Amino acid sequence: MKKTLPSPHSIPSVFDPECSARDALELISGKWSVLVMSALADGALRNGALLRKIGGISQKMLTQTLKDLERNGLVERRDFATVPLNVEYRLSPLGISLSQVLTGLDRWAELNFPELDEARARYDATRKSGR
Amino acid sequence: MKKTLPSPHSIPSVFDPECSARDALELISGKWSVLVMSALADGALRNGALLRKIGGISQKMLTQTLKDLERNGLVERRDFATVPLNVEYRLSPLGISLSQVLTGLDRWAELNFPELDEARARYDATRKSGR
Repeated sequence: MKKTLPSPHSIPSVFDPECSARDALELISGKWSVLVMSALADGALRNGALLRKIGGISQKMLTQTLKDLERNGLVERRDFATVPLNVEYRLSPLGISLSQVLTGLDRWAELNFPELDEARARYDATRKSGR
Repeated sequence: MKKTLPSPHSIPSVFDPECSARDALELISGKWSVLVMSALADGALRNGALLRKIGGISQKMLTQTLKDLERNGLVERRDFATVPLNVEYRLSPLGISLSQVLTGLDRWAELNFPELDEARARYDATRKSGR
């Protein structure tokens, strides 16, 4: 995550592995990043609520993903400094702008997965029958 | 990739690890899937052209990603059955609809990576100074 643009004349491109835009894409296109950002799209949540909402995520992966998102300015961590511990996470303004794009990805997956399922079944059947 | 909805009454959700929508999201949010789909957004390309366009991808990863995308009905492989081998890849109609969402993700990364870079620098400086 320490790369910069190779030259001031370069146009930022996700296709350029030396460009920070590629790092950004890698962060924001990770499966867990997408799910955590989407889970926070409706408002702030605490750790336990995130863990319940995102089926299948481990505590370790949630902690790491939240830390990466916080470090990159996409999620804000708010510690109420109470006993017992009360910490909530919410999207930053930058995170809100990203979550709008990611919501499109979630909706696409939820709308189109039957077509992907059918395509896979067809593909596998064709290969199996030796055609 | 063999899961189905847990019940006919469930609403498809990417948050449900048992739902095929989650599988779909995992496929389409992978870094290499996003880059290959985006690279094909302007039209059909052959293997060599894809390899040159997507900096940093290995032949092995490109082959695997193209196979996954073809299997899921997002990319079509066209073999002209000539010698030397001439195979091109292009988006299916389903792939085109997805690529429009993914282009939004690329543009977001290319537009906003400086803010992520700055946030990381701030975060790391704060942690380093022991605050």
